[in-house]
Amino acid sequence: MQYILGKERAKDIIMNFLEERIQKDGVVKENNVLKVDSFLNHQMDVALFKQMGEEWKRRFADVPVTKILTIEASGIGIACVASECFDVPVVFAKKSRTINIDGEMYTAEVESFTHKCVNQIVVSKKFLNSDDHILIIDDFLANGCALQGLISVVSQSHATLAGIGIAIEKGFQPGGQTIRNLGYRLESLAIVDAMDAATGQITFRKQN
Amino acid sequence: MQYILGKERAKDIIMNFLEERIQKDGVVKENNVLKVDSFLNHQMDVALFKQMGEEWKRRFADVPVTKILTIEASGIGIACVASECFDVPVVFAKKSRTINIDGEMYTAEVESFTHKCVNQIVVSKKFLNSDDHILIIDDFLANGCALQGLISVVSQSHATLAGIGIAIEKGFQPGGQTIRNLGYRLESLAIVDAMDAATGQITFRKQN
Repeated sequence: MQYILGKERAKDIIMNFLEERIQKDGVVKENNVLKVDSFLNHQMDVALFKQMGEEWKRRFADVPVTKILTIEASGIGIACVASECFDVPVVFAKKSRTINIDGEMYTAEVESFTHKCVNQIVVSKKFLNSDDHILIIDDFLANGCALQGLISVVSQSHATLAGIGIAIEKGFQPGGQTIRNLGYRLESLAIVDAMDAATGQITFRKQN
Repeated sequence: MQYILGKERAKDIIMNFLEERIQKDGVVKENNVLKVDSFLNHQMDVALFKQMGEEWKRRFADVPVTKILTIEASGIGIACVASECFDVPVVFAKKSRTINIDGEMYTAEVESFTHKCVNQIVVSKKFLNSDDHILIIDDFLANGCALQGLISVVSQSHATLAGIGIAIEKGFQPGGQTIRNLGYRLESLAIVDAMDAATGQITFRKQN
């Protein structure tokens, strides 16, 4: 089921707090670009991040979490504020242009569609191990390349992947479906199924 | 005045919480490198960040702050958690390899000694303006190039620079002194005046 919203929203549709904020302050651009830089990934509304953390805590209440893993740069703020709801440390994967050869790092290749390049991401082996239950947190999920790299890092560490928390999933791109097909537990707080740059309309996927 | 600490600390010296943590978990490497990646800039102890935020709030209690400005990547987590103590949004400067020509961004050149290159940093003009009172927050201050770029951005926006909060200042490098000479209000939670890679000794500058 879906609900479709223009800037004049129907009053009887109940959106969650993040969908409401996207509706209010997000800007739909050509080529399926959704600009949320006024509250999520350039200017950051930290009170909103705390609400997001509380919502992930509610959705992942039944699984142990010992550490949150994210990736620089815009995932870091969300992950840190959310981690206060879980009372665990955060580790962020670094993007590296140099090949890691010293063996002290978990590494994965991550393709960037935005910047049309391949980055290596690295996480020190010291900070993830087989006893850990990892919750991955990131701001966006579209094609899923960054997320696949993070899952690879968790897998290399033999930690348990407790789940994945995403702020905004672009439901019309394949990343989320692939991750769900693979059996991972993915909780996206807002799933955008369609956007129209001409009208500013955003269609959110209905969630329980 | 200074106090010098090896791994066996003198019991009668009172360190603040961050100095204690650096003493306990920081690692002194050759070439004046202080590794704090287990709690500050790779794995992140968010409860410690909250303490840092409370301490900056105490030190900057007498000035209005409407926004916190930081720079990607490792400043973001600290700034976001600290911002909860100030109840203001955070803006982070992005490092950009492409020249900004559309005029929508404040820009500054930042030299990196670590990576031996010059980056441009950019901040959208939408998010800083002349009504703002900006607190700059960052994890490290050594030569001060990143900080000078952030100050330039604040200056371009005609906002008021309320002050600068740094986690760890390398007091033996010129960045902090330059900033103080220029009359800016700089509060570094730990100032390292000397380090010895052979013994692991760290000398902190005494602060009130």
